[in-house]
Amino acid sequence: MTVIASRSLYRREQMSRTFSPRSIAVVGVSANLGAFGSLTYTNIAGPGRFAGPVYRVNAKYESIDGQPCYPSVAALPETPDCVFIAVPRDAVEAIVTECAQRGVGGVVVFSSGFAETSIPERVAQQQRLLEIARAADMRLLGPNCVGFMNYGLGVVGTFGTASYKGAPQLGAVGLVSQSGAVGAALAQAQEHGLSLSHMLTCGNASDVDVADQVAYLAGDPGCKAIACVFEGMADPSRFLAAADLCREAGKPLVVHKLGTSVRGAQAAVSHTGSVAGSHAAYRAAFEQAGVVMVDELEALLNTTSFFAKAPPPAARGVAVAAVSGGACILLADKAEVHGVDLPHPTPATMAVLEQLIPEYGAPGNPCDMTAQVLSTPKQLHDCFEALMADSQYGALVVPHTYAYGPATARIEILGKAAAEHGKIACNVWMTQHLEGPGAIESEQHPHVATFRSMNHCMAALAAWHKRADWLRDYSGGSPGRLAPASVREHAANLLAASPNAVLTEREGKAVLALYDVPVVREILTHSADEAVAAAREVGLPVVMKVESPDIPHKTEAGVIRLNLKTEDEVRHAFTEVMRNAQAVSPPAKISGVLVQPMVPQGAEIMVGARIDPQFGPMVVVGLGGIFVELLKDVSIRLAPVDQREARKMLDELKAQGVLDGFRGAPPVDRDRLAEVIVRISELAADQAEHIAELDVNPLICARDRIIAVDALITRSRI
Amino acid sequence: MTVIASRSLYRREQMSRTFSPRSIAVVGVSANLGAFGSLTYTNIAGPGRFAGPVYRVNAKYESIDGQPCYPSVAALPETPDCVFIAVPRDAVEAIVTECAQRGVGGVVVFSSGFAETSIPERVAQQQRLLEIARAADMRLLGPNCVGFMNYGLGVVGTFGTASYKGAPQLGAVGLVSQSGAVGAALAQAQEHGLSLSHMLTCGNASDVDVADQVAYLAGDPGCKAIACVFEGMADPSRFLAAADLCREAGKPLVVHKLGTSVRGAQAAVSHTGSVAGSHAAYRAAFEQAGVVMVDELEALLNTTSFFAKAPPPAARGVAVAAVSGGACILLADKAEVHGVDLPHPTPATMAVLEQLIPEYGAPGNPCDMTAQVLSTPKQLHDCFEALMADSQYGALVVPHTYAYGPATARIEILGKAAAEHGKIACNVWMTQHLEGPGAIESEQHPHVATFRSMNHCMAALAAWHKRADWLRDYSGGSPGRLAPASVREHAANLLAASPNAVLTEREGKAVLALYDVPVVREILTHSADEAVAAAREVGLPVVMKVESPDIPHKTEAGVIRLNLKTEDEVRHAFTEVMRNAQAVSPPAKISGVLVQPMVPQGAEIMVGARIDPQFGPMVVVGLGGIFVELLKDVSIRLAPVDQREARKMLDELKAQGVLDGFRGAPPVDRDRLAEVIVRISELAADQAEHIAELDVNPLICARDRIIAVDALITRSRI
Repeated sequence: MTVIASRSLYRREQMSRTFSPRSIAVVGVSANLGAFGSLTYTNIAGPGRFAGPVYRVNAKYESIDGQPCYPSVAALPETPDCVFIAVPRDAVEAIVTECAQRGVGGVVVFSSGFAETSIPERVAQQQRLLEIARAADMRLLGPNCVGFMNYGLGVVGTFGTASYKGAPQLGAVGLVSQSGAVGAALAQAQEHGLSLSHMLTCGNASDVDVADQVAYLAGDPGCKAIACVFEGMADPSRFLAAADLCREAGKPLVVHKLGTSVRGAQAAVSHTGSVAGSHAAYRAAFEQAGVVMVDELEALLNTTSFFAKAPPPAARGVAVAAVSGGACILLADKAEVHGVDLPHPTPATMAVLEQLIPEYGAPGNPCDMTAQVLSTPKQLHDCFEALMADSQYGALVVPHTYAYGPATARIEILGKAAAEHGKIACNVWMTQHLEGPGAIESEQHPHVATFRSMNHCMAALAAWHKRADWLRDYSGGSPGRLAPASVREHAANLLAASPNAVLTEREGKAVLALYDVPVVREILTHSADEAVAAAREVGLPVVMKVESPDIPHKTEAGVIRLNLKTEDEVRHAFTEVMRNAQAVSPPAKISGVLVQPMVPQGAEIMVGARIDPQFGPMVVVGLGGIFVELLKDVSIRLAPVDQREARKMLDELKAQGVLDGFRGAPPVDRDRLAEVIVRISELAADQAEHIAELDVNPLICARDRIIAVDALITRSRI
Repeated sequence: MTVIASRSLYRREQMSRTFSPRSIAVVGVSANLGAFGSLTYTNIAGPGRFAGPVYRVNAKYESIDGQPCYPSVAALPETPDCVFIAVPRDAVEAIVTECAQRGVGGVVVFSSGFAETSIPERVAQQQRLLEIARAADMRLLGPNCVGFMNYGLGVVGTFGTASYKGAPQLGAVGLVSQSGAVGAALAQAQEHGLSLSHMLTCGNASDVDVADQVAYLAGDPGCKAIACVFEGMADPSRFLAAADLCREAGKPLVVHKLGTSVRGAQAAVSHTGSVAGSHAAYRAAFEQAGVVMVDELEALLNTTSFFAKAPPPAARGVAVAAVSGGACILLADKAEVHGVDLPHPTPATMAVLEQLIPEYGAPGNPCDMTAQVLSTPKQLHDCFEALMADSQYGALVVPHTYAYGPATARIEILGKAAAEHGKIACNVWMTQHLEGPGAIESEQHPHVATFRSMNHCMAALAAWHKRADWLRDYSGGSPGRLAPASVREHAANLLAASPNAVLTEREGKAVLALYDVPVVREILTHSADEAVAAAREVGLPVVMKVESPDIPHKTEAGVIRLNLKTEDEVRHAFTEVMRNAQAVSPPAKISGVLVQPMVPQGAEIMVGARIDPQFGPMVVVGLGGIFVELLKDVSIRLAPVDQREARKMLDELKAQGVLDGFRGAPPVDRDRLAEVIVRISELAADQAEHIAELDVNPLICARDRIIAVDALITRSRI
């Protein structure tokens, strides 16, 4: 397992010597050009690359290729900011020590075979590297990483032999990848025109991890949006803090999280020793932090590049224009999948389009301009102009079927229309023809976002609107109040006082009531006479159930009776419930029989809380019964949530139609329901150390009230 | 709207002069090299293209570029098999007439502005072309199409100016695209090594449509699998017949259907005049016909190429091996999404892998071989060999992070291991670097399927297993029996006899009973005394409800009473139901009150039937209540279905867990339930002309029996 002492994010200054060095050394350069050190040296010091000094270090050579080689870091004429270490694993520690002594800013360790092997000595070996680096306030990248690239400075700090043919480029997208190979594979997009500012990897992330790297890029002037792919981290709260820095800097953060499957999560442990964590918890946290999630690796860079180029949406609608009717249909299909709105053009826009488009075309949205408009650039320009000028649209999507000669000019026309209206244009290539004319021009146009998948394009547009909504609603800092200290203490005492691992319904409801969660009234009775008196008090009809910490599944045990309408029925039920309770094996502790009023029918909701091992308290909402158990139709958030977030949770449920008054039932008051969710989320947050799990199921939502009729609280093991 | 007289599929011989011509003419060639006719001529007759004679036709020229040009088709020295017509719309008819008179095999009409405009004269104009062609038994491609390509013969029969740089190539994938631009965009993959045999388009599909073209390719020896993208067709049964020819020929048929969204379906009408039809009906039909569906255009060709290369799966399991741990995780995540099984290697395989892989790697599945195995080809080969030899695996997936020098050799090693074991290897490029070394070699390797998306790769593997299951279970021809003639007639008479547009419950159940659908017993009563007598006969407790054709929603009208336990309650209920029924406004016709035994609780299922305007009778199954109404959790098939198909429908329901005995309820007998679905599907098929809609809701599935307690049959309008 990776060993990371929990700490706050590194500040940018603490990492700038590493990622923006003025001088570099490579340890392990040799006469063998295929050695990792030599490859790294060439990548950094080659023509057109890093302009500062790059020193070779290897005790075996005095010079290589006629250039000086130094025996040690200590022997260098100056202290390098960043040192790449390409030596066998067991030689790493000495070099790291030497660097620490010399006052190096940061070291990059390529070697593998440390904590990711899970072998105790190797874990300890990594831990020693970390301690040496920390003691010297020196950053440590890796081990088991492939380094990093700072394109603006020409630092291609990796041993990869793939060509990096593009000139160093001050770019728009900063890429952070925990996995080196994945990052390196993605970074090849730079050669195809995609504008990258950095590619940072961290491998085993012993010191610097993806959260630090995201934070670094949040402050980098060359980077407009950040793409991040990672498999797991010990302390995701640091990642959320980095996401907040991105928000402050106005930089969209786009993430593809790996290890979302059972097998993938297992593989993550043996890859970099990472715990992939709960996918649902990550999704919830990202949702709350305004992080854009993409669910395919192939979508990551194009989506981030879109975000780097796109201004805030000027309108909700998106226009689609193509010279192919088939492409129009394809895009309309994907727009619907992602809930992207394609409003019809205004009459004024339609009038212009009808003049421009031949009769066998289709002015409208999608707009089939027909291939004829390609014959005169003016006609194409006027179509784009008409759609961009329509105030309903914030973006214009144009599929291109071919990358060939005229494509470059057409992309220029499209980009100009976007620039003039301060909107974004999306070019979707419908071909795998990547090297053709127009391909690089499209990637590099500041007002044209480029996609190679209609699906990814429409998903990005949907995410763009969603992020804008999130920014609009962002209320700053931690949401929701916490309960007053007196309530917190009282509830903690109740939780501590229970002798049971699982609280009885009665105990659980007492805790809920402290947090203003409406619970059904109940009277604990010990005889049939008491039960009848209680029924009179709460009013018939009533429900009766045993109160016992040892019988959680009451229906199966026959210790619950519903809808008792007469005093006779109550008396009879008491005897029956007690008899069945006493028959339970092994014998159960029985405190008596609860008498509660029968709550009228209504929509049944489940509100629960869990303590995630990485994220802490989470609140869960779903419709009762089958929806949660069979369909997993739930919405999850980090607790506590505020009223707005609770409303959003309800809006996410697939079966939410039930809340709108299903089959003649009255609609549920979503605001009141959201309030209950807020209260339960506060309980979860306040009492996170005392509870392991909490289920209010069902919470019955009738026309005039919402009331919890059962509650199950499992205490945390102490 | 497109005008197509329903007819059976063209036989291959009827289309071979068009798509495999021995001689070609292009009408509309001119001295202007940019004219459609000139472009088409060059595409067909250029160097290395079609070897047979290609004639120019244009009355304005005697020669072009020093080569002869003929004034008319009539004046040609021989009768061409195929004539491309690139003249203005209003000149088309005369040329088509001339071709028909000369005995041409087929004409290809590029011109637009016919039926797709929906202008009546233009629709008629297209219809005349069709009639002329049909009368001469001459095939007509288009109008409004971009032609076709037969790569084997070098016929690049289109006006597109994009380069077709690859040499003509006898390929594995036959592509059929209704939309010309979409087809032409896809066909560019041929330049990147994807092996195409044909690219056929049909535009307005007045004569030859995608179904005919699929049928043509089913019989083509150069084509091993067929890719088809289309938006709609007038008579999809012909497409299903073509799919059956593919099955007979052992050729997988892979389809991307456009127009699945509301807006996309609207756009389809203005594009080629096509009715996109019901997406659900198409899906159902494709499911039953063993058609592989891809839901992204970008997946179409790679998936089809995979199917062209893949042998039948030798085992259910799939192995994943990578030199990147991140890539391993990514693939495991997508495998889970698509339900692809990644079993652990056998102990014998593990023993071999553990010898080969460094300790910081991860032998297993996915198998992180680490980048070290790349240093010796032997080691890489041995890893692939070990996994391919493991009898649990039918396929091996290997992501490649770079297309660079050594990639070619590695693909060779991978392909060799696949070939030796008669299995398929999948290479997933993790880069957009398409032109690099290995890219074309990977596409062209007969044992390596190439993908550019992990998602598409895993989806294809899942579809491969699904198709194998389908082939195994294929029982030939039309499924299910139809009912005996006497039953059919009797039911038709009952349906015809009802004076109501919507049959009463009693009438509906009588029809169902004829088809052996178990229905709850009932007695129609006209007085409280009769009701009591009926209750005695069927046994208390009972349900009572009004019998009226005018009150379909009984609960809301207060004309249904449940769980009546005593004769008094029955007597009282009769009066109440009658009073409420008589209070309905406007006044309802009342036949009396039905008395039925109360059916014990059980899972509630909805089985229905619809008559799709294109596909005819369909059967629909879902769980009762909210699942159908709010979650649209239903399974649909063309009716009738057999027992196996009915079981598969149940297996498709997301909420099927309810059938397995939810919360202590007894599990539903799926075989008996499937039998009822079969019966209702037979009813739908038999009575398709009499009924518009049928709903059995609920069908109650208790432990020991399944019984329909309500039925709503809407008659078709006559």
